[in-house]
Amino acid sequence: MSLKLSILGCHSATPRSFAYPTSQFLEINGDYFLIDCGEGTQLQLRKNKIKFSKIKHIFISHLHGDHFFGLIGLISTFSLLSRDKELHIYAPKGIKKIIEIQLQLTYSWLSYPLKFHELENKESELIFENERVTVHTIPLKHRIYTNGFLFREKPKERRINIEEVRKHPEIETCDYHNLKKGKDYTFSNGDILSNKEVTFDPPKPLSYAFCSDTAYYPDIVTQIKNIDLLYHESTFLEDRAELAKTTKHSTALQAAKIAEMAQVKKLLLGHFSSRYKDEDLFLKEARTIFKEVKLSHEGDVISIENS
Amino acid sequence: MSLKLSILGCHSATPRSFAYPTSQFLEINGDYFLIDCGEGTQLQLRKNKIKFSKIKHIFISHLHGDHFFGLIGLISTFSLLSRDKELHIYAPKGIKKIIEIQLQLTYSWLSYPLKFHELENKESELIFENERVTVHTIPLKHRIYTNGFLFREKPKERRINIEEVRKHPEIETCDYHNLKKGKDYTFSNGDILSNKEVTFDPPKPLSYAFCSDTAYYPDIVTQIKNIDLLYHESTFLEDRAELAKTTKHSTALQAAKIAEMAQVKKLLLGHFSSRYKDEDLFLKEARTIFKEVKLSHEGDVISIENS
Repeated sequence: MSLKLSILGCHSATPRSFAYPTSQFLEINGDYFLIDCGEGTQLQLRKNKIKFSKIKHIFISHLHGDHFFGLIGLISTFSLLSRDKELHIYAPKGIKKIIEIQLQLTYSWLSYPLKFHELENKESELIFENERVTVHTIPLKHRIYTNGFLFREKPKERRINIEEVRKHPEIETCDYHNLKKGKDYTFSNGDILSNKEVTFDPPKPLSYAFCSDTAYYPDIVTQIKNIDLLYHESTFLEDRAELAKTTKHSTALQAAKIAEMAQVKKLLLGHFSSRYKDEDLFLKEARTIFKEVKLSHEGDVISIENS
Repeated sequence: MSLKLSILGCHSATPRSFAYPTSQFLEINGDYFLIDCGEGTQLQLRKNKIKFSKIKHIFISHLHGDHFFGLIGLISTFSLLSRDKELHIYAPKGIKKIIEIQLQLTYSWLSYPLKFHELENKESELIFENERVTVHTIPLKHRIYTNGFLFREKPKERRINIEEVRKHPEIETCDYHNLKKGKDYTFSNGDILSNKEVTFDPPKPLSYAFCSDTAYYPDIVTQIKNIDLLYHESTFLEDRAELAKTTKHSTALQAAKIAEMAQVKKLLLGHFSSRYKDEDLFLKEARTIFKEVKLSHEGDVISIENS
């Protein structure tokens, strides 16, 4: 089980010389996901040496420009590079019209199938699933319809304890299939061998939640309980708690409160407002409540492994 | 008279780690113009320390993404920064729909008036004029409707030769107005004083033409004859002359031919394809025909003064 998160951009909307708006690239259990796609994301992917061909699923939290203005460029570039694989976009209703009108008015024909999955449900829903991973929306509280995303590895099978299993000559290799699934073994004489005696626990599945943009919103706590990594926006510090409230953003302290309530293993802060020159202040403020906190920086890679 | 051109991006569409698509900022005779606005232009403006408030007129050559995908981001950022001055966009028909649908679906209300001047004329036309500068379109030959832009300083008034004029006590300060306009002076006895005896020529007006994207298209030569600076795309070298022809781009040699025929003072090449690792080859190829040639690089500033 492994999770690797690359930070491509982690700043709020107003541009600075060397800061990019939101975008992340997640590698989880062998699958790849792009989360948000602010202006300049394609350049950041290049800088971070992430192959374009790995991107098959793009999740957009909400239709504010700093979270999706880089999408049309990426979609176009894929076509210039003669991509043929399907690309799936999961984003609030409206995205299809925005992209399609641009393709139409620029006389662009894509070299690959582009599939839109438009979101409008206000309850959490399963929006992606394969044999290895699930992705659920996390409804957030912002000025417009916004979802966070919860990525969870699926549990792997139990692992055979070869040394123990060999002590029972009656058990054959073809029985391993049931043992891996956690079933007990019934001998021909009717005796039962407890599964745990001949298998090891599988590695614990990892989980990651992306929560941006959002006001302080404790409703999300149940959904992200005990996850391994939480990215929570912290546009402001407590000195601007009122502004956070009116613009429906969070402070570093509020992000830390959510992390503490949800008992997550690690908190990652981001979406910093340009008004703060010293970003270490976000770290200090959050640490007053929650210790395992880290700031995002463009180019950072956060890796978690469970073996 | 002065002209200062800042290169914000000068590469063709496929992204590289440290290369930006087309955008230029032109300062001419005290006026400011942004030409094309590829993705990342707002970041490049910041890096080049160009104040956003200077931008009142944006010219878009054509609706291929590498020339305008940065426009929606810039328009939005201006609003986030509470701009109140009008912004004028001169671009092919379709731009209004593209921008307005994004503003509408992102629930954005601009803090300033946004005025579109949609272009569809296939003949050259005057699209901007004030007391100091004119801007004409230069119809180009590309896969879709495309205009270059010709920026010309208006001639300044003649300058009074104080030493000479004082030799004629009858001429008063209030007569200077007519002398500056080039009129001869008629003494009270009917004698005529030739204007040239008491004035200097004004500095020669400067001119700049932006021609991208375009196939080799000698029709433009008449319009750009003798200008001070020509930016002409050179996506390819002659080794890809066939590809240039089918994609309606130019080679460095073709750009040089245009410069030679138009007898421009200086040629600036750009819009380089990512297939060429050594950009000096563009310079070498163009120099076989035209000596006064320069390559664009992001961050370059080209200044011309006539005093």
